[in-house]
Amino acid sequence: MKGYIQVYTGNGKGKTTAAIGLSIRAAGAGKRVLFIQFVKGEVYSEIKALKRYDDLIEIHQYGQGCFIEKQITDEDRELAMTGLNEVKRLLKINNYEVIVLDEANIALYFGLFTIDELMSVIDCRPKGCEVIITGRYAPKELIELADLVTEMKEIKHYYTKGVCARKGIEK
Amino acid sequence: MKGYIQVYTGNGKGKTTAAIGLSIRAAGAGKRVLFIQFVKGEVYSEIKALKRYDDLIEIHQYGQGCFIEKQITDEDRELAMTGLNEVKRLLKINNYEVIVLDEANIALYFGLFTIDELMSVIDCRPKGCEVIITGRYAPKELIELADLVTEMKEIKHYYTKGVCARKGIEK
Repeated sequence: MKGYIQVYTGNGKGKTTAAIGLSIRAAGAGKRVLFIQFVKGEVYSEIKALKRYDDLIEIHQYGQGCFIEKQITDEDRELAMTGLNEVKRLLKINNYEVIVLDEANIALYFGLFTIDELMSVIDCRPKGCEVIITGRYAPKELIELADLVTEMKEIKHYYTKGVCARKGIEK
Repeated sequence: MKGYIQVYTGNGKGKTTAAIGLSIRAAGAGKRVLFIQFVKGEVYSEIKALKRYDDLIEIHQYGQGCFIEKQITDEDRELAMTGLNEVKRLLKINNYEVIVLDEANIALYFGLFTIDELMSVIDCRPKGCEVIITGRYAPKELIELADLVTEMKEIKHYYTKGVCARKGIEK
């Protein structure tokens, strides 16, 4: 049987954070995890921390940082497609039990790849391999085909008080 | 300045998972974390996984497992209060930069301790120490005084398909 597809979306804090938590929980049970991060390119504290689990959690980043407020370039698209192709290649040779596609929703939203391209990769996963997809703006088609969807809804956020992203808390 | 209070609540999957992710991110930045789990007593995979970070993340559990469908006993209340007092003691002697009070909302909801008792402990934290509180049913008073609140909203869940909690994925 195919593993389930979990989607974490919405405008609240906690999506990538939950994906990190899911990776750690899986590793705690001895599962092998492929953690792919689209869009973001910086090595945030969580990526550094996950390195302590490099026997079980394999990490690759395919992004140049946040482009939400700038023009998307061909390079952004190429990088995302390279990532998607790399995931397909890795899924053929390694027996992952969990794959995380962090910020894939953002990549879909900005047209870096299509949902058909994403699904053709996900469909290559080994039997029982769970898929975690994060990011704002999960498209309706993805929500329909997912098995679990949580919307992280912002009720209150301290950025309205002028708090910027802090090392070890947000990044 | 006091650190911020973050609350993760709602009926969707991802609350404890996000708290684990936040602990990992903090550890990745070299921050010292106190991770307290109320209500739950079993050693789930995520707790096992966090042990690899025991130089930075200190974990204590004060629960006997899920009591939602059974009667709450004096022992549940005593255990939760012991936990709360222990947090107070630890905050006085160690310089944590992040404290996680996992399932504290559930403890409040079931009257294991009051919000005043919880706040009197949180108020003892060192300068700049961030507080993460998770669990369904966050009381209105807590939402009002928190700096950041995310509601994890269940849009779709596979338990409706009869999927039970799986090792390395849910527990």
